[in-house]
Amino acid sequence: MRERPPAPPETGEKASGKLWGGRYSSGTAPAAERFTASLPYDRRLWPQDIRGSRAHARMLAGQGIISAPELELILKGLDEISAEIEDGRFPWRLEHEDVHMNVEARLREKIGAAGGKLHTARSRNDQVALDMHLFVRDAVDGIQQDLHALQTALLEQARSNQGTVLPGYTHLQRAQPVALSQHLLAYFFMLQRDRERLADCRRRVDTSPLGAGALAGTTFPIDPDSVARELGFNRRYANSMDAVSDRDFILETLACCSIVAIHLSRLGEELVLWSSSEFGFLEMPDSLTTGSSIMPQKRNPVIGELLRGKAGRVAGAFVGLLMVLKGLPLSYNTDMQEDKEGTFDALDTVSACLRIAAEVIAASTFRADRMLAAAAAGYTDATDLADYLAAKGVPFREAHAIAGRAVARAAAEGVPLGELPLEVLQGFHPALDGSVYAVLTPRSGVGRRTSPMGTGPGPVDEQLSLAADLLAAPPGTVSWVSTG
Amino acid sequence: MRERPPAPPETGEKASGKLWGGRYSSGTAPAAERFTASLPYDRRLWPQDIRGSRAHARMLAGQGIISAPELELILKGLDEISAEIEDGRFPWRLEHEDVHMNVEARLREKIGAAGGKLHTARSRNDQVALDMHLFVRDAVDGIQQDLHALQTALLEQARSNQGTVLPGYTHLQRAQPVALSQHLLAYFFMLQRDRERLADCRRRVDTSPLGAGALAGTTFPIDPDSVARELGFNRRYANSMDAVSDRDFILETLACCSIVAIHLSRLGEELVLWSSSEFGFLEMPDSLTTGSSIMPQKRNPVIGELLRGKAGRVAGAFVGLLMVLKGLPLSYNTDMQEDKEGTFDALDTVSACLRIAAEVIAASTFRADRMLAAAAAGYTDATDLADYLAAKGVPFREAHAIAGRAVARAAAEGVPLGELPLEVLQGFHPALDGSVYAVLTPRSGVGRRTSPMGTGPGPVDEQLSLAADLLAAPPGTVSWVSTG
Amino acid sequence: MRERPPAPPETGEKASGKLWGGRYSSGTAPAAERFTASLPYDRRLWPQDIRGSRAHARMLAGQGIISAPELELILKGLDEISAEIEDGRFPWRLEHEDVHMNVEARLREKIGAAGGKLHTARSRNDQVALDMHLFVRDAVDGIQQDLHALQTALLEQARSNQGTVLPGYTHLQRAQPVALSQHLLAYFFMLQRDRERLADCRRRVDTSPLGAGALAGTTFPIDPDSVARELGFNRRYANSMDAVSDRDFILETLACCSIVAIHLSRLGEELVLWSSSEFGFLEMPDSLTTGSSIMPQKRNPVIGELLRGKAGRVAGAFVGLLMVLKGLPLSYNTDMQEDKEGTFDALDTVSACLRIAAEVIAASTFRADRMLAAAAAGYTDATDLADYLAAKGVPFREAHAIAGRAVARAAAEGVPLGELPLEVLQGFHPALDGSVYAVLTPRSGVGRRTSPMGTGPGPVDEQLSLAADLLAAPPGTVSWVSTG
Amino acid sequence: MRERPPAPPETGEKASGKLWGGRYSSGTAPAAERFTASLPYDRRLWPQDIRGSRAHARMLAGQGIISAPELELILKGLDEISAEIEDGRFPWRLEHEDVHMNVEARLREKIGAAGGKLHTARSRNDQVALDMHLFVRDAVDGIQQDLHALQTALLEQARSNQGTVLPGYTHLQRAQPVALSQHLLAYFFMLQRDRERLADCRRRVDTSPLGAGALAGTTFPIDPDSVARELGFNRRYANSMDAVSDRDFILETLACCSIVAIHLSRLGEELVLWSSSEFGFLEMPDSLTTGSSIMPQKRNPVIGELLRGKAGRVAGAFVGLLMVLKGLPLSYNTDMQEDKEGTFDALDTVSACLRIAAEVIAASTFRADRMLAAAAAGYTDATDLADYLAAKGVPFREAHAIAGRAVARAAAEGVPLGELPLEVLQGFHPALDGSVYAVLTPRSGVGRRTSPMGTGPGPVDEQLSLAADLLAAPPGTVSWVSTG
Repeated sequence: MRERPPAPPETGEKASGKLWGGRYSSGTAPAAERFTASLPYDRRLWPQDIRGSRAHARMLAGQGIISAPELELILKGLDEISAEIEDGRFPWRLEHEDVHMNVEARLREKIGAAGGKLHTARSRNDQVALDMHLFVRDAVDGIQQDLHALQTALLEQARSNQGTVLPGYTHLQRAQPVALSQHLLAYFFMLQRDRERLADCRRRVDTSPLGAGALAGTTFPIDPDSVARELGFNRRYANSMDAVSDRDFILETLACCSIVAIHLSRLGEELVLWSSSEFGFLEMPDSLTTGSSIMPQKRNPVIGELLRGKAGRVAGAFVGLLMVLKGLPLSYNTDMQEDKEGTFDALDTVSACLRIAAEVIAASTFRADRMLAAAAAGYTDATDLADYLAAKGVPFREAHAIAGRAVARAAAEGVPLGELPLEVLQGFHPALDGSVYAVLTPRSGVGRRTSPMGTGPGPVDEQLSLAADLLAAPPGTVSWVSTG
Repeated sequence: MRERPPAPPETGEKASGKLWGGRYSSGTAPAAERFTASLPYDRRLWPQDIRGSRAHARMLAGQGIISAPELELILKGLDEISAEIEDGRFPWRLEHEDVHMNVEARLREKIGAAGGKLHTARSRNDQVALDMHLFVRDAVDGIQQDLHALQTALLEQARSNQGTVLPGYTHLQRAQPVALSQHLLAYFFMLQRDRERLADCRRRVDTSPLGAGALAGTTFPIDPDSVARELGFNRRYANSMDAVSDRDFILETLACCSIVAIHLSRLGEELVLWSSSEFGFLEMPDSLTTGSSIMPQKRNPVIGELLRGKAGRVAGAFVGLLMVLKGLPLSYNTDMQEDKEGTFDALDTVSACLRIAAEVIAASTFRADRMLAAAAAGYTDATDLADYLAAKGVPFREAHAIAGRAVARAAAEGVPLGELPLEVLQGFHPALDGSVYAVLTPRSGVGRRTSPMGTGPGPVDEQLSLAADLLAAPPGTVSWVSTG
Repeated sequence: MRERPPAPPETGEKASGKLWGGRYSSGTAPAAERFTASLPYDRRLWPQDIRGSRAHARMLAGQGIISAPELELILKGLDEISAEIEDGRFPWRLEHEDVHMNVEARLREKIGAAGGKLHTARSRNDQVALDMHLFVRDAVDGIQQDLHALQTALLEQARSNQGTVLPGYTHLQRAQPVALSQHLLAYFFMLQRDRERLADCRRRVDTSPLGAGALAGTTFPIDPDSVARELGFNRRYANSMDAVSDRDFILETLACCSIVAIHLSRLGEELVLWSSSEFGFLEMPDSLTTGSSIMPQKRNPVIGELLRGKAGRVAGAFVGLLMVLKGLPLSYNTDMQEDKEGTFDALDTVSACLRIAAEVIAASTFRADRMLAAAAAGYTDATDLADYLAAKGVPFREAHAIAGRAVARAAAEGVPLGELPLEVLQGFHPALDGSVYAVLTPRSGVGRRTSPMGTGPGPVDEQLSLAADLLAAPPGTVSWVSTG
Repeated sequence: MRERPPAPPETGEKASGKLWGGRYSSGTAPAAERFTASLPYDRRLWPQDIRGSRAHARMLAGQGIISAPELELILKGLDEISAEIEDGRFPWRLEHEDVHMNVEARLREKIGAAGGKLHTARSRNDQVALDMHLFVRDAVDGIQQDLHALQTALLEQARSNQGTVLPGYTHLQRAQPVALSQHLLAYFFMLQRDRERLADCRRRVDTSPLGAGALAGTTFPIDPDSVARELGFNRRYANSMDAVSDRDFILETLACCSIVAIHLSRLGEELVLWSSSEFGFLEMPDSLTTGSSIMPQKRNPVIGELLRGKAGRVAGAFVGLLMVLKGLPLSYNTDMQEDKEGTFDALDTVSACLRIAAEVIAASTFRADRMLAAAAAGYTDATDLADYLAAKGVPFREAHAIAGRAVARAAAEGVPLGELPLEVLQGFHPALDGSVYAVLTPRSGVGRRTSPMGTGPGPVDEQLSLAADLLAAPPGTVSWVSTG
């Protein structure tokens, strides 16, 4: 990403094949070349690089900086180069250090002097910034689709499993019964925030730096806005020094990806927990689990584990880039070349995780029987017992204590609350009568939590409907309910 | 932040003064109490907690869940408690573990049974989430103001120092001459992005979780939207489990703060560099530097150093919270109690840094003489020499090489390019004539870079005007130029 | 931590009460003073600061740089100051910015001119480095004790629960039966590595920087070795610039603490899992869990959750300091003042976590019945079935497949392998006869894994014995078995 | 890294070619296979994997578990496989997922049934742990050599540049004159700590997990110690569950690498600063800098910048792995497969940085003239002026103030202190006489700082001698001076 010229030199005075004008008396040492070259990873940017070069060339011609025939030659040459790369015939050369110089050098080989004019009024500093804006924008759009697909799978399961009741957990203790739909929709709405957040982020990614030159603009009569429009950008930078030294758009994208990855790590943890013998709430298909070379009974939830674990590398990429940028003076510094590998990896990782998560959710079977049994066995109806008493006029604090004592008694006997005989219950408080048994079931507990956002059928229906609307709307649509 | 009840118990069966109903047979061990209590840090949330309780109580009364006299008692009690806390008379008690229980227990002491009704249809899970939403929203608003103040200081200096020229740097090498205004405006536009990003983030912070209960909603006929509106929220959550287990809004705020802190670290680095004897571009007032106990000559740019260094703790807070949340199952887990200390520190740090940075920028003197001398001595006009030749028809690659050789010659003689005699210059290329000397000055180099975004007077004027408009507009206004 | 002089000035020429010689024409702005002062957090270093000053003064007297009466005055003054601080009577003043200057200024108030001589041949740069070395060394020693205590609790439980069998898990799937002792000892040996690692780290912490002066040593005839010896250091730095700019010893300590915290997070996760209704392996005493204000049945494993979550802040402190130090030129920079708050917090956190973890382990009850039932129900004997067949000459791959089919059949019928009738088993392979039932129990599976490190009684006994030896040995003793 | 069996199945009942016994009714979905396969990155472990397999096979034969002919077949097969991989002829197959299964499947193709016996008494859980121990141990040894080479270059320059004086900096302000040797040696001793730290770390890396099996040991009569010895390990784990779930040795290595990278980032910053026109202290050879495609005068210190920037990715790898491991229950979990890519990258990065840094240091020229001029111009002798007065009986605080006023006067006149006329100096204090001029030179300032660690000739000679001794000693030798 350094401001190096296209090789080879016309003047021929360097044996090394590298030329930065007359000030140099020797070529680059091979070890330095290897250490500083970005080609091994930045060649992935070739589609963006060529797209940007096409637009730049058209602008140069439009402004009369190059001629129409020169433009034609350049565009034709770039087409050939694209084809070569796609076909695996392109002669990548490390001594040209990066994707930009490889493409430009090849163009010069193909079309001669006109190839050298492509770099007019452009520096590698604004060129690489452009490529990264284009690349990240594409990647964000892909992740939006991946998020949408996972949300779709969640919504489908939430719809298909209406009526399934499981224990809602706090502190991994059974707390209150909830609808499985409610549980799955919690993830749906997390991901909706991710889509909204990425849509905001994309507006900042979607900004063209081209025209900033090395750092100070240029003396050529360029038209940066027309280039930006051709490349689909809604904005360009206002200040050339900012344009070449800004990597905020990558930081912000990585921060968004880190949050997505955290969400996936939570989902992954639940896939692992629910697949355990102890929970037994979930059956993933054989095709999405793996066995053991030693233990014939194993069905390992490896995808859940990787969804959980891969949050680390995404967060690491964000931290790494923050550290790179910390304390850098203006404007471009080679440190910023370190913005690529971690970013590529994080974007790829998040996309792959979302896709496989969608497959897992879609293909899994939820064990309604096990879930209901767990809800019934976990005293998740204790709150309802307290509420029942409170509704009969017992102060809530006292009702809470009574319910607690009833739980202790039932637990000692190894039965649910609803199996304590009426005389035992009445021993705790005389207000308890036979009507209490209607309250002491998980389904009843779910059914009566009808407050907005709650797990009762009414609010869950509202959520299902909202979710469907959100999937049909653009990604930046707000994920929550307006209070207006 | 755990779901613990208000103490003391009415039923009196616990010597320890702690009560969670009849299931418990002993109190909390003192070591466990100390380890798990959040009071030492969360009591800072008291204004948010009381604000939320007032709104909740009004909603309960509005829905007929508590009576009008009970509401009056509660509001009066909360007023008294506010006054006690403000005056430092409030009896904080660690055994009540957190700010919520301290306030509630005190309310019960003051107004008796009605105090116990405040917690109706509310859990500490949604209560603490509400408090954090309110706190972070306030903090974000404060940081927006702090960003605005620093931008104002930068714009003022950019305006006052029009005409000052310094070397623009890439790789910390003098590259091309730039206007000081251009350099300062680069920071202005960075910070504008920060404002825009935080404004987007705020829309997600600005969401009410109240009404989610412990995790599943409630059986009481509550109206979460009215509470939300009273507290100034534009949205509420759609799903109760999401509402109590979401900390995205804090993560996103910390990510935004980390990016702000990175910007400040870059500014800090430049304050340090520019204050050095070697650069000598900047003089901070005595009142903003410090001396040495040993070395009488020292004037240390400590504020610049701290602006640079404090990025670490902000990033550390973000990483820390990511790690806390990684792999947590739904819904509330006590791990999430760890969302406070780092967040408070990061928000405080960013705010303090922005404020002191604004003071430093406003009070510093830029040494135009030193800057111009550096620009003149650094061969930053070599690009202009090459461009001059190119304009005379010399191919740019050849022109670049000629200029390089001229630089080598001038450097060997220890003079600027513009002091090489004409015959020497002509020795490099015959196209060079006396008109070249007009090109070989920093001011000329700045003046001719008139492309959009560039450092020439025209584009800088445009930036100054845009900057003024942005300061007058709401924080979320886009920081760049539309290409439409 | 800046190189500022003791106040107040003798010459009185500054109204502000701040003095750094004649070069300054104004005092520090209050906002700058607040922003840069480290007193609010570094005053915690007072015992180390005074300990270091005593040793420094004795050295100065020993070398004839101050007189014996001056030494006596200084030591007496420092004693008084210690007493004042301990009693809460010490007048901390923010305008003196840090603990060093507060102590020194107070000393000058108490004993006059002799107090000013304490700073001879010393700078705040080496002074604060010394204080941090002393503080971190003390903290590391404390953490070593805390680690030892937790190991002791683990070993005690491993001893008391010999014979208890539970499923060993991989992928959170029941894999093979293991002894509870084996499971607990895995944590014991993790922590032993922590002790060994910290003991290595301590050797680098245990190095004296005093005598480095501001950065270059001093012209006074000091004896840094004698100071170092008096303070119990085994080494001193070799190079003064390194001595004042090194914070490796803190980084390394924080890295060790991060690894401890990760271990505790794993233990915390298992405490949470094992306390769940689904596992039901562990009962923590009421005094170490908490209940819910709403749900009477809850017994929340909050300590487990916090052990898991607090890894975030420790890692955040490490990352934060790495970022602070990244890219700093030599030698001292104020950025390094940021080495304190995160470090204090991380050290405190790790110590508190270890202590409470020891209490939890010691006080918990393991449910041998539930563990055995889980091991029996989880087909953890499938490997043993395959091994049984392999021992009878069936190729392992085929034996593995047969065992897998037997598991599938048993699972379909909802019974353990050992309850499949013989004729059913023989249907899978004729080599299966009645002797197979002896193999198909968890206890049998544990008992036959007698390879070194394994879960059988022999290797577990060896581990118990090794663990006892390690607890009796110094902390740096190696945690593994020598292969020599 | 999962516990999957070698394919293909003998029994042929799976069309997919994947077999984990009879429990499975379908093969792995292609998307899941791609998502979970580690082959793309773990095939780099092939030398370690084959080395481990050879040792394991020899142990199996030694214990009579396999026959001598089987051993011979296995060793021959592994030799052939090694050759195939080295020659690029090896048929890597993604469906075998990882390096272990690829090697084993190929072995079975080559030697038939005997190949299947290699996995006896071994699981992929202990196998992959072994491979990583071997790989990291090799990498640590390489980094030790790289550190040594950089130290050698530093020492050589420190020796060659004795007598060169430059300003020592604190806060990037010129503070006191120092010898260039002293400055370079500060880095030498930093790196010595790195060597010592890595040597300690290596003792924990150097531990064999083989024999732990899947998690619980094995029923086969294995001899883990003999395998460990053959592989050069000094220790083995004590507990099988710890052995397969421990990744501390990687965390610790990454922590050590992060600290090395921070040191390099500081060196990189100074290379950048010193190469700037403003400092002008350092000239790197053309072969180690790069030019600009646009600006003919540029000589960019790209290696310095990358040394500075690459700290980010190394720290990111450490953070990433910490996050992966946080909260994992025992024993092996697939999340731990994420221990490889970041680790490989960090180890490669640190090694490459050290090597290129050694080249840069060795090949750079230090500009003694510019350094001396900077020291002379920076009032770095102000401390000496104060000391001069103090030696004449003026209290140090007063002397400090006088020197400060003298600096202010000299700075106003733009001259060094030593060029103020005697009468001017005497105006500040009558004790100043002509002898003061001897003090007011950088060389004098350096020469009189003869305290241990200091920059004077005596202590620098001692450091040079110590450094030479340390280079000749083993890497773990302590980097500091014993105070004993």
